[in-house]
This record gives sequence, structure tokens and C-alpha cells, in this order.
Amino acid sequence: MAKSKKEVKNQLDPKDCTACDSTSQMITKARKDGVILHFDRAADMKACPIGADSACCKNCFMGPCRLNPRDPYKKAGVCGATIDTIMARNFARAVAAGAASHTDHGMAMLELFRDVVNGKVLDYEIKDEFKLERVAKSLDIETEGRTPKEIATDLYKQLESTYTQVDGEIPFTKRVPQGTLDTWRKLGIVPRGAMREIMEMMHRTHMGVDQHYKNITKQASRTALSDGWGGSMVSTEISDILFGTPSPINVGVNMGVLKEDMVNIIIHGHEPNLFESMLVSVNEKTLVESAVAAGAKGINLVGMCCSGAEMMSRHGVPHAGNFSSTEAIMVTGAVDAMAVDIQCIKQGLAAVAQCYDTPLITTNTRAHIEGATHVEFEEHNPSACTDEIVIKAITRFKNRRHEIEIPKAVNDGVQGFSHEYIEYMLGGAFRGGYAPLNENIINGRIRGVAGVVGCTNPRVKQDDSHVKLVKELIKNDVLVLLTGCAQIALAKAGFSVPEAAHYAGPGLQEVCETVGMPPVLGLGSCVDNSRILIAASAMVAQGGLGNSIADLPVAGAAPEYMSEKAIAIGQYFVASGVYTVFGVTFPTIEDTKFHNYLFDGLESEGIGKWDHAIDPIEMAHKMIAHIDKKRKELGIDKGRERVLVDMADRRGLA
Amino acid sequence: MAKSKKEVKNQLDPKDCTACDSTSQMITKARKDGVILHFDRAADMKACPIGADSACCKNCFMGPCRLNPRDPYKKAGVCGATIDTIMARNFARAVAAGAASHTDHGMAMLELFRDVVNGKVLDYEIKDEFKLERVAKSLDIETEGRTPKEIATDLYKQLESTYTQVDGEIPFTKRVPQGTLDTWRKLGIVPRGAMREIMEMMHRTHMGVDQHYKNITKQASRTALSDGWGGSMVSTEISDILFGTPSPINVGVNMGVLKEDMVNIIIHGHEPNLFESMLVSVNEKTLVESAVAAGAKGINLVGMCCSGAEMMSRHGVPHAGNFSSTEAIMVTGAVDAMAVDIQCIKQGLAAVAQCYDTPLITTNTRAHIEGATHVEFEEHNPSACTDEIVIKAITRFKNRRHEIEIPKAVNDGVQGFSHEYIEYMLGGAFRGGYAPLNENIINGRIRGVAGVVGCTNPRVKQDDSHVKLVKELIKNDVLVLLTGCAQIALAKAGFSVPEAAHYAGPGLQEVCETVGMPPVLGLGSCVDNSRILIAASAMVAQGGLGNSIADLPVAGAAPEYMSEKAIAIGQYFVASGVYTVFGVTFPTIEDTKFHNYLFDGLESEGIGKWDHAIDPIEMAHKMIAHIDKKRKELGIDKGRERVLVDMADRRGLA
Repeated sequence: MAKSKKEVKNQLDPKDCTACDSTSQMITKARKDGVILHFDRAADMKACPIGADSACCKNCFMGPCRLNPRDPYKKAGVCGATIDTIMARNFARAVAAGAASHTDHGMAMLELFRDVVNGKVLDYEIKDEFKLERVAKSLDIETEGRTPKEIATDLYKQLESTYTQVDGEIPFTKRVPQGTLDTWRKLGIVPRGAMREIMEMMHRTHMGVDQHYKNITKQASRTALSDGWGGSMVSTEISDILFGTPSPINVGVNMGVLKEDMVNIIIHGHEPNLFESMLVSVNEKTLVESAVAAGAKGINLVGMCCSGAEMMSRHGVPHAGNFSSTEAIMVTGAVDAMAVDIQCIKQGLAAVAQCYDTPLITTNTRAHIEGATHVEFEEHNPSACTDEIVIKAITRFKNRRHEIEIPKAVNDGVQGFSHEYIEYMLGGAFRGGYAPLNENIINGRIRGVAGVVGCTNPRVKQDDSHVKLVKELIKNDVLVLLTGCAQIALAKAGFSVPEAAHYAGPGLQEVCETVGMPPVLGLGSCVDNSRILIAASAMVAQGGLGNSIADLPVAGAAPEYMSEKAIAIGQYFVASGVYTVFGVTFPTIEDTKFHNYLFDGLESEGIGKWDHAIDPIEMAHKMIAHIDKKRKELGIDKGRERVLVDMADRRGLA
Repeated sequence: MAKSKKEVKNQLDPKDCTACDSTSQMITKARKDGVILHFDRAADMKACPIGADSACCKNCFMGPCRLNPRDPYKKAGVCGATIDTIMARNFARAVAAGAASHTDHGMAMLELFRDVVNGKVLDYEIKDEFKLERVAKSLDIETEGRTPKEIATDLYKQLESTYTQVDGEIPFTKRVPQGTLDTWRKLGIVPRGAMREIMEMMHRTHMGVDQHYKNITKQASRTALSDGWGGSMVSTEISDILFGTPSPINVGVNMGVLKEDMVNIIIHGHEPNLFESMLVSVNEKTLVESAVAAGAKGINLVGMCCSGAEMMSRHGVPHAGNFSSTEAIMVTGAVDAMAVDIQCIKQGLAAVAQCYDTPLITTNTRAHIEGATHVEFEEHNPSACTDEIVIKAITRFKNRRHEIEIPKAVNDGVQGFSHEYIEYMLGGAFRGGYAPLNENIINGRIRGVAGVVGCTNPRVKQDDSHVKLVKELIKNDVLVLLTGCAQIALAKAGFSVPEAAHYAGPGLQEVCETVGMPPVLGLGSCVDNSRILIAASAMVAQGGLGNSIADLPVAGAAPEYMSEKAIAIGQYFVASGVYTVFGVTFPTIEDTKFHNYLFDGLESEGIGKWDHAIDPIEMAHKMIAHIDKKRKELGIDKGRERVLVDMADRRGLA
């Protein structure tokens, strides 16, 4: 009999779910104010146990069919679909939805780039010409003696094919390590354009099409790769070109970044263009004067969620909190406007906003919310929208009538580590490169590298698993790269400062102190996970750690994930060769063929594999065990024993 | 309190589900043989009542959330998604999956066309140069004095954009009646490339993106239109160009087309290319000799499902039955091979095939089935696959060891009505056109036109609703156009012959007798529903029946649907202006905002609307009522009173 994860899930009784300190403070106030938050809805909503185990299928109207997770091979669906087909289809559709989200976001950035280049949009410009050249060169576009406009025009054409090309290999496969690319070609998973892969994935998961879990998984890998090395990567690269490549900057994070005596505006979502334009509007003289005239000391623009993470990284805009805090922060009574664009915007925000008379403004044509005010954001005239948001916020400030209670916590730390900066930082000005990272991995000071990413989820205590996992990893000399809500969780816990090196094991601590960096490096939003792929490729290219990403002593984790984007990200990491562990729950039933294929079979095909652990310490040790296995395969497990370095080593490092 | 359809569904106790006569005979034998069919699985599978009402959401991992269909506004999902958001998202994903299926199918045809044109594929050719020119002209491609290859090259380029174009309007919008197109432009639903619409739909239905049911529905319409006027239409037009445009042909339908003394090969699926190549292989001299040497009188190639419907329409290949008969037919013991490609292939076929030692052969890279043999079909060398299928069938014939029982029924009838043929047939050789159809609608002999399409579904008696619905419609002088499994149902019931005109009301009967046509016209596979759109456009263009498709006295129905493709088709008919009624079940809860929007609100925006009825007679009268409403709006309701035509009318008709 197969094992259902139901026993495990019962440990996660939603009634136990609690949040980080600031959010908890707001939950207390919300209960006093009679306001319902998503923590309350989670506590009040028993997850469907059959759906959670992915044992139900509603891909046609002969059902919905439900199999028994405890005896999954006893029955099949009406069409004859087995549990493996059903789970694989559900999983693949999550990948398709996640990949579509990043891809649509990336395409929006690319269209903005096109219109900036062709002069149709005048309010944005190419801010980072160095990056433009660098990306162009990586795609074999001639840069010598050409104007930025010429280079950008060619770049646009190549990158558009990342979405549209109906056959062949997408442009950024040029960045994939040869060993990894060879494996993809052998497996037939080199992606074509992302839109084609998503379409085919949706077709294959239609009733009566693909009904072999391995073949479905193959297309799920291809679709996910078209995201990681396609839609997401284009988004990050274009955003850097348009808005600047992040480099380290000191920023305050947590709800305490709100100011009682200022007009507080929160931007929450994923696309940086709205936020970039907001930055202009809140500095607009007449609007600032208007805020002052309304009795405020000024306008305080802060970010949340992933567009917040991007603006924090690029411009040092304060960040008020991650996904689980977006409703709670309105309970402060101090939010004078919240403007949102796409993804991870809870519909529940509308009701909470109403309770505190906070204008909730949707801005993107793709994302309206019942009960919110829609002010369409147009790249051709961005200030029309963003000025209006400021005006609404000032009006609300003027008419504030709710008790204000802002949690005090502000956690300062260093954010904004692009892979370009990591290269520079580790190598120093005259020998930029990944050699020092690889050397320190080979000599064992750094045991390996972990990417800790993903959402927060009200089914588990907010930030708790992120922090415990990362603490355990760095204690064991694993350098941690962070993105998205995970990055904010660690920032709030005080890990984003060089002084946090004391949490690290002796090897990693030494490296951190030498370089002057924190033991965790925040790389930006969830779409910026592509930065981790590029960093991994650079490690392979540097040499000494194998020929493919699958050879590297690295691991990935999303301990508090909640979105389909996370599944797409997980699958593109796995398909790129990374061992990847997810927390909370996993949409498979143990001891089924599909589950075993994801958790074991894929690795034997030369790529990465999935794993699942709820306990963050267990998760850390699974990741460390994988890192140690890779070290052994690379023959560098001996180096690791020399963990207490001597002065000669230190001199070697310098 | 909202009304759940649960009461209604209880009337559809799966234990009552029965099939058409031939299939029933096989069910009886299957039970004797101890073989499980999808009827048994349906009887054994209680549909999830929450899922059936679309009140569950598994689009993220904070759930799956379940709302109460009987009190749907009491709670929201963990993210705050209301019942309207949840239902709209589920509905929209079904549209995306259905559109993706047709679009991927169409793109496969288009790629074959490209490779035929550029000489890479030599086993197919352009069979219908007249249609090539006609389609090219409809897209303003110059044809005068150019070679077919030149025309085809241009046509390929334009049609590829049907899938890939990231903005603008797809090519076949040129065929949309002006009034309809104006409405689409006003509503913002003119489709861009299908792949873009599908991607955006998947993005919008991701957690935290689009959370207004009206905005979600808008993108669902756009996505569906990119199928109906895009993916599907390209598929039909290209298939006609490559394989010939259907014209009426007499064909036998039903299980009796199997021959006990011949090697029986069934092709089941949706793409015609495999089947076209099979036709070559079964006439290959050495293979025929080999069959004879094995003791057979020859090789008997028959179709099922939609690729069967296409081959029946184009080449008069006998058709053995629709979706609900595909497992049952193997119980005859007489199927020596079943080869499948994509869509509506039950995974349960594998187990049934094994019981009768029938080779089940998957051929398409996108659709493997656990337990089936995969022989990849390559357009560059099609006979490698199709010859092997024949050889496997001959081997199985030689080793037949199962009792054979073939139901006797064979229903001959006329199939293969393309819209081009309808135009010719109604107009006659020297005045081809839709004038006579419009005239007969205006004068009331023909009350209106109904499209009856879609699947069969084991939750209701196979074919029963199709037949009862159509009988009632033609009795009331409604001309019926059929596609897909509906077409096969009516063929089996004996309605595809001119003599069936006696079932029709006096007006329609008179027209049928004058023209010599049956009262129901079969237009092909489910992807060929695009033929109905073109016919409707031609009716508008002809004049006298309004300026948009929404003005026409027409209606659509899918009384026994089961697939997501059907939902996509329904939505593109609705968005094109057609009143569309579905049977079995409908994935909404009555008296909710989303339900009312689909069933009522859309019509007030100038397009069509949805409806639902389980009883086929009720369904017929809903459709007739709509047709009469449209007649009244057009001011031709008076004409209808003159239903008993006099000799002057008759002469006028001639």
C-alpha cells in the first residue's frame, strides 16, 4: 500500500499556523479589529486530502475522479487514467502555469524594452549599457563599434524567439554548460520557445493525450527549462538592462519601514516597471508639496513581495515584508495606498483594505480584483497611473481615521547580489571570476552552495523554516543564495549583514570575513532565480567541479513554497541538474511510480531530483548529504576534512 | 442560497449509464469475458460533488480549498478567492487546455504543410490546389499567375503567425463578419497568436493574478477565439489543402464495418496524417499479400473518433464508432490492431487491448500510454510506422485465439459536407452561394440552423441525447450541422440519409427533398467546427440576417460533452455570438455572479451566451426559443407563420 502524506500533514494543523513577529502583532490587532486575514482563512479551511495528494483529476467532465491515496492502484479514473498519469498531469499543469507566469512577465519586460529601443516609450531608458553589451555578447551578437540601439535591436529579436520559436533551441541555451546541454539533447528536453512548450504541455495533459508519467514529465522538464533559461532569464536580464544591475546596498526590511507621519505607499507584485515609475512620482515636486500640505512629512514608498525585492536590490527602496504580511500590514492603519500588479496578490486584500479605508489599486490589464479600484498602468504614459496612486494615498492620509500601530522592527542588511557582483566580489577588481569560489569549495572551506527560495505559506509558521534551514546550512559551511520571500525572511531574521558570519561554520566564516560579505546572499525576486542558474553555469565553466550542473556540490530548497511558480522553478532546477527539496507538502503519493521517478529516477538520467521534508533541520541535512555525495564524486571530499585552515591556506586565499 | 446542480446530477446515477446498441452488445460480452470498460469505471466512480460544481481550487499549495456549493459565498479560499474567481479560473483553464489541444494539432498540420512545400517531406502533397487558392485569397495573398508553391509559401508564413504573433490580430479575423469584429474590438477580445493567449490565460489563472471573474472571462473568450478562428481553423484548412476538401460520400458507420475474415485495423485519434499514410500501407501489395497468406481476405482499415470522422468525410473510410465505443469494440475479438495518435484516447484501452491480445500502438511523440507499444510516426518516413502497424495486425490475425462476435449493425449514410460543398449544394452549379439558405430562413421554411457537436460521456446514455435533440430540432424545421462524435451518433441512428427528411418538419423537409440532402449535415471532426464558423460568416455576408453572427437565428449544443476541448469550442461559439447549450453537467453553481455572467451577461455585451439542459427535448426547445427570438429581432418571425408552403413558394425556391 502506498503511503499518503496525510499523517505528516496532520502535524501541520492549520490552527498552529503563526507568523513572524511583526505579522503576529498585526494578527492580534486584526482580531481586535474584527478583520479576517489569510491566517484565519487557512485555519478555517481544511485542505482537501485527496487533492493535496494529487489523487483527483478534473481534466474532463466524466469526473471529477478521485482515487484513494492510501490504495492508489486499486482504481483508475473513468478514462482509465492511473494514479501516475493523474499525478503527473496535475504536476505538469502546475509547471505550465508557473512557467506561463514568468514567461508572460518576461514578455512584458521585453515588449517594454522593444518600445524603449524603437522610441515608442520615452519614460524609460537603457540604464545599464554595460549589461546590454554583456548579454548581447553572450548570445554572439556583435557589439564592437555599434550603438546601444543597434545592439539592443538585435538583442530584442533574438530574445523574442525565447517565446515564439516553434522549433530549435532557445537563445540562452548558449549559456548552459556543455555537459548539461548534452544531457538535455539526449533526453530531448532542450526547450523551444516558452509559449510553444506551455501550449504543448496543456495539450498533453488534456484527457486522452499523454498517459505515460515519464513522457509527461519529459515535457514538464522542457516547459520548465523554457522558463528558467527562457522567460525568467529574459525578464531578469532585460530588467537589469532597463533599470540597472543590482549591486550591494544597505536597506531596511520589515513593517517598521512604515512611517506614521508620512504618506505610506506600498507597491506589491512582480513587474518592476510600475514601481520604477512610482519612484519618479513620489519625488515629483508638486506631489510632495501636496503631501506636506496634507500634514505629512513627505511620501514614504516601500515595497513588498517580489517587485519590492527588485526595487530593494536595485535602488535600496525599503521592504515591508513578504507574501504572508501583505494583508497584515494594512492592519497597521498606516497604509495610505497599496498598488499591485501581478502574481501573489491575494484577493483577500480587497476586504482588508476596505476595513481600513486603504485604496487598493490594481494596475495591470491582466489582473483585476473585484472590489479594488483599477487604474491601468500604460508604459506610454506611466505617470498618469502612478501620480493618481500618489494622489489617492495623500487623500487617504488626509482623512486617516483609524488607530495606527506600526510594529517597530526594521532590519537593516545588505541586499542586491547579482551574479555579476558575486563574480566581482569574490574575485576582486583585477581578477573577477568564480575561481576563488571554486577554490574555496575544492579546498573545503565552503562545503557547497545552496539556493533557498520561494514563498511563505500560512500552512506553516511564517519564515520559521526559512530561517532554521538557512541557519543549519551556513553552520555547516554551505553558502546560501536567496531570492524572493525567502530573502526577506532571512533579512528580517538579521542574516543579511556581514556580522551574521558568526552563525557560519569556520570555513564559510573565514571566507565571509575575508570578503566582508554576509553568509547569505540575496539575489532578488523569484523571477531572478535565473541568476542562480547563471552562477551555477559560471562555476562549471570555471573548472574543477565537473562538466555539468549536476556535478556541482549544490542543492536547492523551497521550505515554505505555495505557488505553481515554485513548482516550475523547482522543475527547472531539477532538470538543470540540481537536487531540490520542497517543504510544506508535496503533490505526490509516496511509493508510486511517478513519485519515485521524480525523487529518484530523474537523477539516473543525468539530471537532478526532487525531495521533500517538512522539518527544516532534516531538510538541511538532506541537502548537506547531497552536497557531500557530490564532493565525493568529484574527489574533493578529502579537502573538506581540512576544515580548520592554517595560515598558509589563508595566504593562499588572499 | 445558490443552487447546486447536485439534485440534477443524482438523476444521472452512473449505474443507469448505457450505450448504443452495438456497444451494449459488447458490454454484455465484456462482462462475460471479465473485462472492465469505461462504463464500469464510470458506474464505480462517484464524481466529486465539489469539483463538479467547480467549487474547489488547487491552483496553489495553500489549499486545495473547497467551498460549499450550497452556500458558496459563506467562505473564500485561503488567498481570499471567491467562488466566482475560483469557478472562472477553473473554466478558463479548461478553455486554455482545449484551445491548446486544437492549436497544437493545427500546428502539427501546419508544420507538415511547411515541410511538404519546402520539399523536406515527400510522402504527402498538396491535393487541393483550388482550396489552396481560395484560402490564400481569403487572406489577401496574391494568387494570380503564381505557382502553388509560391502561394503556399506565403500562406504558411501568414498562418504561422496564427500561433506565434505576440500582438495584433490573427489572419483569419479577415473572415469575421464586420459586426462581430466590431464587438470583439470593443470588448478587447480580438485574438493575438494562440500560443500567446494560452500562455496569458495560464498566467492569469495563477494564484494572485486575475481575480475578477469578468476579466478572466474576457481572456477566456480571447483564448477560445484564437482556437476557433485560429488553431482549429488552420487545422481544417490545411488538412483540406493537403488531403482534399470533403464532399458528400456514402459511408458505412457502426461496429458492423469490422470483417471477421479480414485483418481489421482501427485508427483512432485526431490528426489525419497518420491515417492518410495508413491508407497507403493497407493498399501496399506485399502487405496485402502477406495478409492473404495469413488466411485473411484482405486488410480492412476503419476509423474511430475524430481522425476517423475526417477520413470518412474525405475518403469514405468506414467508421466503427465514437468515443464511447473505442474500448468496447476490442471486445469483438476482431480488432487486429488499434493505432492511436492524440486526444480522447482512453488510458483504459491498454488493459482492454491486452485482454484480447490486440496490439495497441501509440504513434505520436506527445502521447505515450503505459502498457502500449510505441512506434513513432515520422512524416519524413511515414510508412516505417504504418507498415509496422499492418504487420503487427497481420501477426495478430494469424494468431487469433479469441471468440469473435461482431455486432451486425452498419448504417450507411452521406457524410462529408464541407462548407464549400454546402455553398455549392444549396446554390447549384451556376449560382453557388448561401442565398438559397438565407432565403429559406427568411421565408421560414428553415426556422434556423443548429450546430450539434461534441463528445459522448459515460455519465449519460451513449448517443441518446444527441439523437433525441436532433430529432426534435429537425421536426421543428431547424437544419442541423454535426461534427465529431455527435455526427457518428446520428449516422448510427440512420439520420444521414436523404430519406431521413421525413423526420423533418414540413418546411425543412421540402428543402431537403428539393436539394436531395439529409436533414442533418455532417461536417467532420471536432476541429472542423471551424467549418460552422465559416458557414455562419457566409450567412451574414449573404445579407438579410443581420450584421453579426449574434444576429443569426442559430444555436449550438453539445448534449453529451466530456472534454475540455468542448468547453473551448463552446466558448468560441459563445464569443462569436452563438447561443450554446451544454448537457450532462455544467461547471458552475447557479445564481452565482460568474454563472449569471456566462448565462446572461455576455449576451448583453453583444456576443452569445451559455445555457445548460440535461433533457434533450428541453434543450431543443431552449434552442428553438432562441432561434425564434432572433427571427423576431430580424423581423422575419412573420415569415415563419407561413409554414405550410404553397406552390408559388415552391416555384420560387426552384
